[in-house]
Amino acid sequence: MDNLGVVFLSELIGTAMLLLLGCGVVANVALAKTKGFAGGFLMVNFGWGLAVFAGVVVAYASGAHLNPAVTLGLVANGVGEFGQGVPVDVLSVVTYIGAQLIGAFLGATGAWLAYKQHFDDEPEPATKLGVFSTGPAIRSYGWNLATEIIGTFVLVFVVIGFGRNGDASGLAALGALPVALLVVGIGASLGGPTGYAINPARDLGPRIAHAVLPIKGKGGSDWAYSWVPVVGPIIGGVLAGLAAIPLLPLLG
Amino acid sequence: MDNLGVVFLSELIGTAMLLLLGCGVVANVALAKTKGFAGGFLMVNFGWGLAVFAGVVVAYASGAHLNPAVTLGLVANGVGEFGQGVPVDVLSVVTYIGAQLIGAFLGATGAWLAYKQHFDDEPEPATKLGVFSTGPAIRSYGWNLATEIIGTFVLVFVVIGFGRNGDASGLAALGALPVALLVVGIGASLGGPTGYAINPARDLGPRIAHAVLPIKGKGGSDWAYSWVPVVGPIIGGVLAGLAAIPLLPLLG
Amino acid sequence: MDNLGVVFLSELIGTAMLLLLGCGVVANVALAKTKGFAGGFLMVNFGWGLAVFAGVVVAYASGAHLNPAVTLGLVANGVGEFGQGVPVDVLSVVTYIGAQLIGAFLGATGAWLAYKQHFDDEPEPATKLGVFSTGPAIRSYGWNLATEIIGTFVLVFVVIGFGRNGDASGLAALGALPVALLVVGIGASLGGPTGYAINPARDLGPRIAHAVLPIKGKGGSDWAYSWVPVVGPIIGGVLAGLAAIPLLPLLG
Amino acid sequence: MDNLGVVFLSELIGTAMLLLLGCGVVANVALAKTKGFAGGFLMVNFGWGLAVFAGVVVAYASGAHLNPAVTLGLVANGVGEFGQGVPVDVLSVVTYIGAQLIGAFLGATGAWLAYKQHFDDEPEPATKLGVFSTGPAIRSYGWNLATEIIGTFVLVFVVIGFGRNGDASGLAALGALPVALLVVGIGASLGGPTGYAINPARDLGPRIAHAVLPIKGKGGSDWAYSWVPVVGPIIGGVLAGLAAIPLLPLLG
Repeated sequence: MDNLGVVFLSELIGTAMLLLLGCGVVANVALAKTKGFAGGFLMVNFGWGLAVFAGVVVAYASGAHLNPAVTLGLVANGVGEFGQGVPVDVLSVVTYIGAQLIGAFLGATGAWLAYKQHFDDEPEPATKLGVFSTGPAIRSYGWNLATEIIGTFVLVFVVIGFGRNGDASGLAALGALPVALLVVGIGASLGGPTGYAINPARDLGPRIAHAVLPIKGKGGSDWAYSWVPVVGPIIGGVLAGLAAIPLLPLLG
Repeated sequence: MDNLGVVFLSELIGTAMLLLLGCGVVANVALAKTKGFAGGFLMVNFGWGLAVFAGVVVAYASGAHLNPAVTLGLVANGVGEFGQGVPVDVLSVVTYIGAQLIGAFLGATGAWLAYKQHFDDEPEPATKLGVFSTGPAIRSYGWNLATEIIGTFVLVFVVIGFGRNGDASGLAALGALPVALLVVGIGASLGGPTGYAINPARDLGPRIAHAVLPIKGKGGSDWAYSWVPVVGPIIGGVLAGLAAIPLLPLLG
Repeated sequence: MDNLGVVFLSELIGTAMLLLLGCGVVANVALAKTKGFAGGFLMVNFGWGLAVFAGVVVAYASGAHLNPAVTLGLVANGVGEFGQGVPVDVLSVVTYIGAQLIGAFLGATGAWLAYKQHFDDEPEPATKLGVFSTGPAIRSYGWNLATEIIGTFVLVFVVIGFGRNGDASGLAALGALPVALLVVGIGASLGGPTGYAINPARDLGPRIAHAVLPIKGKGGSDWAYSWVPVVGPIIGGVLAGLAAIPLLPLLG
Repeated sequence: MDNLGVVFLSELIGTAMLLLLGCGVVANVALAKTKGFAGGFLMVNFGWGLAVFAGVVVAYASGAHLNPAVTLGLVANGVGEFGQGVPVDVLSVVTYIGAQLIGAFLGATGAWLAYKQHFDDEPEPATKLGVFSTGPAIRSYGWNLATEIIGTFVLVFVVIGFGRNGDASGLAALGALPVALLVVGIGASLGGPTGYAINPARDLGPRIAHAVLPIKGKGGSDWAYSWVPVVGPIIGGVLAGLAAIPLLPLLG
């Protein structure tokens, strides 16, 4: 298999793992009758952070972007290649992002299956959608967008910082720990207004899954909001990639 | 002592440690009058994750499977040997699994002794059983099985991923951290419907202990459900081992 | 750019990251209608600890003081230089502290923007101020000062201990983990009486931001208390730097 | 200064750090009007674990026992020396344990000072004592002793396991992380019945402090129970040291 094939499978599997565990923790905290019901926002933060941890471990070969905002942020940063000898061009970017979206769809579907009975027993349609996709605490497209931009800026900027400050390969599986901790922190700190998509695939893939899966008693998929967690993270990621050009070489 | 003897003792001690601490955290959160009563599901998740941490540290010599689903997943994956020059054959597999079951029985017994008075004071038989073995939030053998399959698939697949992505031996005791974090995450994310056995020994060993120990005021051991957390994890582990054959070599 | 320019940018960016995430987690837990509302003090502790983690990663080049109490503690400890060939003199100390204050101002402003709607919806002025700056649970300048001295002493003393016990550079991004964990611990253990400023810039920069930003429905900035989280941490940091002179060489 | 002098100072400082932060987190969760009031048992567990983390970092030179049960467990295990060329003899053991007790006294005193106003405002004498020393959830000296033996056995057995599985010195400050995580886990899992002293100095030193300090409105120091968290941990530690002789060489 060529390198793009490896990238495709790696990103697909990693993003599926991310969404399986990420949507899973929301299901556990939010849906009726689960053992983790009302487990608190910190549990959600750790759940998503450790979902990133597991996803990064199994997507090592493609650099574990798992997020179009990371891919596009690296493009904006001007990296020469994505690793594995994969050049930065339209085809490779489309491969990364396509795999991430498909993986996110599949992972969210897995979480739905793992919690199938609890979805069936849950009376509230909005709660069901909330397991799949993010929604704002106070709806205001401009400010919601700003929050997603800020959150994703932090994600991509610090991730680029990880790379500048040395190579983590000697750490084996612990190399996935820094980004996991970062996502725990971003969730706790910046997740309050919008539920921190900070990743277009994380939000859009599951929203499509919500729309097409035969979920008992589901309501609408809130397409009116759906562009915010796509556009915001892309802007934030690209800004971080651009900001890192003059800053991080200075700092590293 | 020969290598199988080392494996037997190592797995027995490690799985006993796992169950002592794992059943312990459930006892602390669930039983009457404890200091951790109603401490929340995240506390249970961290408790089990750190139980894995301690168990892996003391079962280093046998590779710290501590779980028949891991052992059988590695067999399905086609590993050449289990380490220590121990060949993969019926005798070694039986040694691993036998030690895990006995260790789990002993560890759960230890947790019962550590919380003896709180068991005695607890009025609800189902709560007592819940310290030993898992039970479904909504009983439905098919879906409960599916949840256990998914959870164990994640466990074994990512554990195999740890191995592919490098050797953790240079990290000394921190080498046990990745799997501990993984188990925290699986618990938070996929533990909602069935309480995440994801390990046949973790569930069956303590269930036997519950059945035979003179626990004051205990009820039945729910043998009708007992096959789910045995069969589900085995299926999930074997599927993960098989899935990793074509996927992880590509990715690693 | 010369070394002091690197220090200035590095400290500014790192401290801005620290305050963006740090004030962010308080906003999430305290302000009306957020998803993390009433998430608990442990969530605040992890949020601040991981804010330190992210801040240290991006301020690697300047040694990531991010805190005048650390800078002055190192001066008191008699370090020869701050790294990067930056000498310890009035100009470099002013550069560090000035960048920290400006970064803290900017980071707190970012948190305000990320939570703009929730600030607008929050009825209680004291809660708004509490997102920016610390305040005592029981006001008593002397005892509040003592608590800040003790907390900052622990911070700076253990940070100096990190340096003595070996170099973390081989750990890449995980090199930021020890101080992050330390701050989680100090918050949980010593944050009860005063909300653990333990950093003059962390408190003063945001307090200035609170005073000058057009925050809807804000009250006063409690300047009467503002000297405590400046003076206390400076005393604690300098005492730790002095205490480490005779003790840590013995111990290291 | 000779090696025993280094050991004395190192253990004293490390154990003082342990108790300052450890008693601190209990004060934060238990005393009236603190910011962490009712923060939950998991917060207590993390607080004590990170107290161990900070204590181990600053007591690196003496091997950071910080606990007579560890010191005596190593003696029972038959180690040749305590490190630093310090022989295992009556004088060195007395030096370790004496420093631990004095450090524990001083650390608990520091926590009292940091929370002075909250002690003064707390109406319940038993809550004040609970910040200093442990007490049983259900009083029964035999079973309380058993719980402390089991908990300390786990602590010392796994700590010895850390040493067998490799040297953590290359990890710099992260070398203190495994034991910190272990203590988080023991607390969550085995802390329910007795509040996990698992360390004679941790309990006795602060109990003496409680007895002699001029704490406003304090009650008795519960000397009737005081032998349990001394004798139990010593038995558990020695048993772990003995158990490790035949087991861990096999396993390592």
